[in-house]
Parts: sequence; structure tokens; C-alpha cells
Amino acid sequence: MSSAPPPAPATQGKTLLAYGVMVVVTVALFQLVRKAGAGLVAPAPTSPATFGQGSPAAHNDTLFHVLLALAVVIVASRLLGMAFKWFQQPAVVGEVIAGIMLGPSLLGRFAPSVSGYLLPPAVAPYLGILAQVGVVLFMFLVGLELDTSLLRKKTHTTIAISHASILAPFVLGSVAALWIYPQVSSSDVPFGIFALFMGLSMSVTAFPVLARILTDRGIQKTRIGVIAISCAAVDDVTAWCLLAFVVSVAKSKVGHATVTIGLTVVYVAVMLAVVRPLLERAVRRHELVRNVTQQTTALVLVGLLLSSLATECIGVHALFGAFLLGAIVPHESLLAKSMKQRLEDVVVVFLLPAFFAFTGMRTQIGLVSGLQNWLICGVIIVVACLGKFGGSALAARLTGLDGRDAATIGVLMNTRGLMELIVLNIGLDLRVLSPTLFAMMVVMALVTTFATTPILHLLQRGRAEEAAPREGETSEASG
Amino acid sequence: MSSAPPPAPATQGKTLLAYGVMVVVTVALFQLVRKAGAGLVAPAPTSPATFGQGSPAAHNDTLFHVLLALAVVIVASRLLGMAFKWFQQPAVVGEVIAGIMLGPSLLGRFAPSVSGYLLPPAVAPYLGILAQVGVVLFMFLVGLELDTSLLRKKTHTTIAISHASILAPFVLGSVAALWIYPQVSSSDVPFGIFALFMGLSMSVTAFPVLARILTDRGIQKTRIGVIAISCAAVDDVTAWCLLAFVVSVAKSKVGHATVTIGLTVVYVAVMLAVVRPLLERAVRRHELVRNVTQQTTALVLVGLLLSSLATECIGVHALFGAFLLGAIVPHESLLAKSMKQRLEDVVVVFLLPAFFAFTGMRTQIGLVSGLQNWLICGVIIVVACLGKFGGSALAARLTGLDGRDAATIGVLMNTRGLMELIVLNIGLDLRVLSPTLFAMMVVMALVTTFATTPILHLLQRGRAEEAAPREGETSEASG
Repeated sequence: MSSAPPPAPATQGKTLLAYGVMVVVTVALFQLVRKAGAGLVAPAPTSPATFGQGSPAAHNDTLFHVLLALAVVIVASRLLGMAFKWFQQPAVVGEVIAGIMLGPSLLGRFAPSVSGYLLPPAVAPYLGILAQVGVVLFMFLVGLELDTSLLRKKTHTTIAISHASILAPFVLGSVAALWIYPQVSSSDVPFGIFALFMGLSMSVTAFPVLARILTDRGIQKTRIGVIAISCAAVDDVTAWCLLAFVVSVAKSKVGHATVTIGLTVVYVAVMLAVVRPLLERAVRRHELVRNVTQQTTALVLVGLLLSSLATECIGVHALFGAFLLGAIVPHESLLAKSMKQRLEDVVVVFLLPAFFAFTGMRTQIGLVSGLQNWLICGVIIVVACLGKFGGSALAARLTGLDGRDAATIGVLMNTRGLMELIVLNIGLDLRVLSPTLFAMMVVMALVTTFATTPILHLLQRGRAEEAAPREGETSEASG
Repeated sequence: MSSAPPPAPATQGKTLLAYGVMVVVTVALFQLVRKAGAGLVAPAPTSPATFGQGSPAAHNDTLFHVLLALAVVIVASRLLGMAFKWFQQPAVVGEVIAGIMLGPSLLGRFAPSVSGYLLPPAVAPYLGILAQVGVVLFMFLVGLELDTSLLRKKTHTTIAISHASILAPFVLGSVAALWIYPQVSSSDVPFGIFALFMGLSMSVTAFPVLARILTDRGIQKTRIGVIAISCAAVDDVTAWCLLAFVVSVAKSKVGHATVTIGLTVVYVAVMLAVVRPLLERAVRRHELVRNVTQQTTALVLVGLLLSSLATECIGVHALFGAFLLGAIVPHESLLAKSMKQRLEDVVVVFLLPAFFAFTGMRTQIGLVSGLQNWLICGVIIVVACLGKFGGSALAARLTGLDGRDAATIGVLMNTRGLMELIVLNIGLDLRVLSPTLFAMMVVMALVTTFATTPILHLLQRGRAEEAAPREGETSEASG
């Protein structure tokens, strides 16, 4: 085997000449062909029969506008995310605000022509699909990151806090619904479903952003950190099961709800009792090979799609299936790590911004106008904090933590982040939330997430066990 | 720092009891709330003001059908890809056939209801956008994989072969257009553009699938292998520049074409003279840090989007910008490797199947009916092979390779793969190709790609320098 062809003795000049002659001959031949064909007549155009074939302009316009929208929102959300990180805020707050600023709330209001060019209404469905596919993949990643051993290592404290941190906001949220329903809901939404959804949306804790805040502050290994992360894991699982329940009730109005719930329970049981052991065995055999092939990636992604489709068929949301599959993949396995590595960057950098833009396009802060509306918005924020912060802090205090630690736990659990926005978008899709209430709830999600870090900072100041926040992190979790 | 909370002395029973009481109290409270709210009246429903909000059923249906279509096409293309690999064929042949089988040519014809459920027409635009975004990312990866040093290490042989392998099929293709145009084109397509496009689409070589075939057969380091890969690299770059030219001419009909071509030349010059040195310097500084952060990934992806948008604005295709940016990233750098690692699996496993399905949905083999049409299809295949195989084999023979080596080079250069399909889809979008001609050209692409391995096998049999084909590869390139 010779490793390369021997250099030919051709001089540079000879080569150039040969090339020139070739090109000239080709162009000349082509001109001859063109002349010869000038008089040819082709059949009359038939109407385009393939449905994928729009007018060329429209077709290219869609791709152009989708790429433009992605570029704009990635840049905007990255920049605002970085700005917020600089103020020691989770990046997700900035990213969500970037989406809202590009939507009808700011850009659409003050520069409608710019907004119409950057994010035209026609691009919304495409951005919506990219966003939804992105969120399905993201929920799988959230599931992967969930350390299920945290759910098993239950202590008196974590059980009390995690339950209180769901039940208290749930009850307070549904009580608040009594006052909110006649004002901003609509008569085609049954009160029961509305109250259920309000309760649920108050009880969400953002597991990923919480984990990120703990790591950023270097307190993830402290007692408080471990309690908070364990409770958030329990909350996450409970909230998604509750969401599955609410969606099934909301979708199938009467009668069918029990079927949906029954099927969901069966599906979860099969996944836990049959698929998980199989996965664990496959993963253990796989670890010996130490190589996650593209074939494996394809298998996992197909599994992810099938699990999403199964839950969507049952009547709960596709996201639930994605999350469930992620959660049953052994957390510390090579498979989990390698899937995370392969998916995370594309999902977080490329697809989640589409979700921020899509959410922003649907958020009309302008609808929250007048004293009355802002009063409702304020009440929602107060109720959300009272339930989540109050419930978990009280439970922590009662199980023996000191006041400061209890307050820290309360503040951490009050972080809502991206999870809340995903739940709210589902609420808007189901029309349980009116656009006005959706905007109010988005404000609530932002305020509660935004409030976490400064309050945490105050609580931690002067504490002996405080570790210096780590700087210069290389990857961020949106949560 | 204590590493975990001390286990609480609570007994299992006590915990369960507390939990039960909590749940019962919550459910009871919620029932009270529901009763209290039963008489509440909410405002009358307003018409939905946010455009992203369709009816809930329609909205979920889109996500469901997109996920279903993805699952179906990933499974089908993986299975057929594996089957074809088993017959030592490039996987891409099987993947493309899977897409065609799911489309109107097979499934749509014999089981229209199944096809209508798995790939309903309404899902085509969404699949199309996923496919196009996937192909943009894929072309960036193809650019990344392109070793530009191959373009500089020119020898007499590679220059002769690479030029002949473009010019010969180009001239033959445009001559064939004289006969094909009056039969299957349509009168709204000017003959000049038609001839240009026919010439171009005959001269495509699939760089990725060629590289893969060489690796699979273990001949990538042999003289033949190096010549073939170098020529394919030159062909790739030339074909994409030609495509940019053809698109600009086709789009801007008269007058504007020169502006487009001028702008394209300026853009390429700026990318090569300004952006590439900057990138090289950044990459060199970066190598010292040995860490590609998520921020870097975001920067590169934004650059990719901007480059695609720039070429789309100029009037050549977004894919050209993506390819160009990939090509100027230093080939051996950590940045190139890490971007490849982060993007490849998601693109190849998740997004390219959408392209196969989309292409399949647009390919109506049924349109190629009757002796006349199949005769045209046969002529297209013969012309494509004569031009590409004949041209490169002849050039190889004339520059001193023996007959068998010359034939091997010819066969390798005749591989068209995915690249051809991307070009054909652009032709269909521009309406230069009628659906019938599109179907014929797809058949040509499949036949020429399919023929490569068996002929190569025959040529290599008994050759002393033949290396045993490697089995059990862990990753595949679609090309």
C-alpha cells in the first residue's frame, strides 16, 4: 500500500492551462447546448401534485424565517441569560424574559414592524413544533438527571417537607381559585378543573434550576442542600403525576377520566416493573462494553418517542412519557451520561430557545392591565409564595430545623423556573388558562424564581457553613 | 458540612399514617373548595386572542403526529439501513428507500389509510422544517468533515480526475437535457436553467458516503483511496458552488443573477480571508484551554444560523452557508471534533430521518409510468454513469493509472448518496424539476449509489492490496 500518490511532474503553469482549457471547452459546449435547446418546447405546466411543494418563495421564506427566528432568540436569550447570571440569577430568568421581550409584550407593541419581520405569526406553528420537540427531549433529560435513589432515602424531614410543599400550595391555590375564577376565567372552563389546575401550578418546583442554584452556591452537599434536592425530586415526580391527572380530567371531561387514570397507573406500573429491570440489565451488560453506539442512541430515542406517544394516546401529555422514561434509566450509568452528553447541548442551546420564543409570543403582558388585574396578579404571587415557601418552611421548622435553615428550604422550594412555564403552556393549550391568566402566571413564575437567589444570599450571609460560590462554570442547566 | 440528614427515628407506620392523613385532609379540603365554587360564574369566553393557541385537539394532534411520524421513519430507516449494511451496502440507500416506501409510492398506494394515519399530509410542513433544519446542520457537519488540506495537496492525477469528473457529467447532463426537456419538463422552466440543473445534478459526488465506503473496505489509506477522497472533496466544493450559481440564476431569472453571483463571491472571499483566520486564531487559543463550553457551542450554532441566513439573503441556498462555515473551521481542531460529537447523533439519528420521510413523501414513483418514462429514466442513469464513471475513469487512465485502478476511481466517484437527494429537493423547490423528473432522478441517485459496492467488490477481488473489510462498525455516516 502506498500511502499517497507520487507527486506528478506537472508544472503549475501546465496545470492551470489544462484547467483553463477544460473550463473554456465546457462553457463553450454548454453554450452550444443552450443554443440548440432554445427552440425546444416543453409540455404545459401541470398543477403541482406533490403536497410538500409550495410556491418556491413561500417555501424558502419559511426556512428563512425559522432560521432567523432561531438566531434572534438564541442570541437574545443567551445575552439576557448571561446578564442575569452576572447578577447571580439563574440564566433561565433572563432567557424567559428575552422570549417575552421579543413577543407582543414589548417588541410587538413598540416596534410591530420589526417584530413582524423577526417573528412573523406564520412562523409560530413551526417554532411551536421545534419548541415542543425540544421540551420533550428536555423532559427526558430532566428525568435522566433525577437521582431516583433520593426518592428512596426518605427521612422524616424530607417526607414532611416534600408533602407539605405540595399539599399546602395545592390547597391554597385551589382556595384562591374561588376568588380568581369569576374574574379572569371563562364560563366554558368547569370550576373543578380550574381549581385543580391552579392548585397544581402553585405546587411546581423546578428541579433542574434548584440543582443548579445549589451547585452555584456550593451548598449541594450540605444538609440543607441534600434535603432541598431530595424534596425537589419528590415534588417533581408528584407534580408530573398530578399534571397527568389534571390533563386527563380536563381532556375527557366526564366518565373517561377514570379510564385515563387507570391506564396511566398501568403504564407507570409496566414501566417500573417490566421496562426498568430490563433497562437495568441491558445497561449492566452495556457497561462492560463501555461504548454507546449510534445504534443505541437511535434505540433510546425511539423508546423516548414511543413512551411519549403512549402517554399522549392514554390522554396524559407526551412530556410525562418522556420524563418517565428518563427517570427509569439508571441515573449513574454510562448510558445516562452519554445520552445527556449527546442531547444536552443541542436541546439547551438550539431547541429550548424556540420554547422561550414560543412562550414569549403567547405571553401578552399587556392583557394584565388595570389595578384589578395587577391585584389578582399580586394575589397569585403571594398565594404561590405562602403555599410553597410557607408550607415547606413550616414543615422544616416542625421537624426540627432551626428558623434560618427552615427559611432556606422554603426559599429553595419556591423556585419555579422552566418547569412552571411548561405546565402553564399545557394549561393554555387545554384552555384551562385564559391568555390573561397565563400572562399573570408567567409573571408569578418569573418573580418566584427571581426572588430565590437574593433571599438565599441574605439567609446565608454570615453562616459558618457557607461555601464560596463557584465561578466560571462551563455549562448551565435551564430549569 | 454534614453530608446527609441523620435518619429520623420515625417508624414506617407513623410516616404512612402522617402521609395518609395529609392526603385525606387535602382531598377533603379540595372537595370543600369545589363545592364552594360550584355556583361561581366566570365571564363569557372571549375568542382566543393569542395566535399560537389553536383548538386543544388540533394542537396536540400536530405534536402527536410529528412524534409518530418521527418514530415510524426512524425505525423504518434504521431497519432498512441495517438490512442494506448487511448486504455491504451503504446504510443511506436503505434509509432513502424506507422514506420512499412510507410515501405515496408504496404505502400511500397500497394502504392509503395506514399512510394517512402515519404520515398525514398535514404533518408534511412540520416534518419539512425538521428535515430542512436537520439538513442545514448536516451540511455544516459535512463541511466540518471536509479536510481542506486535501484541496491543497493537489497532484496531476487528482486535478485531472476531479475536473473531468465534474465537467464530463455536466456536459453530458446538459446534452441529455436537449432530449429530456421536451418530454418531462414544463414550459415555464427556461431551457437554459433546466440544462444547467441537469448538468449539475449529474456531477454530484457524495463525499460522506464515499469516505464511509472507503473506511468500510479498509482502503482509505491506499493510493486509490487517497485519490478518490481528494477528488470527492474537490467535487463537493465545486458542486456546491455550482449549485449556488444555478440557484441564483434560477431564482432571479434575468438581470439580478450577476448581483447574486457577485455577492456570493464577496461572501466566500470574506469568509475565507477574514473569518477563517479569525477562527483559526480563536481555535488555537482555545486548544490551550482544552474545553469546549456550552457558550462556545451556542456561538458556533449562532454563526451557523447567520451564515445560512446570509447565503439565503444573497439568493443562494441556506445550505451553502452552513457548508461554507463548516469547511472553514480547522478540520483537526478540538472545536471541530467536539461540535461533530455534540451534533452528529441528534442530526443523523433524529433529524435526517425526517428528511428521508419528507423526500419519500415527495417522491411519486408512480408518476414514472409507461415505457417512454422508464426509457427516460434509463437514459438518465446511463448518462449519469457515463459522465461520472466514464469521465473520471478516463482521466485516471490518461494520467497513468492502470485499467483496474481507473475503473475503481470511476465507480467510487459515481456514488451520489444523500448529497444528490439534497440537490434534487432544491430542484423540486425551485420547480426546475417536475415531480415526474424528480422521481426519475431519485431512482438514478439510488441506482448509482447502490451499484458502487458490488462493482467495487468485483474490481477488488484478487487484488493483492485489498484489505479485509472491517466488521462491526459503531457509527455510520449518512452521505
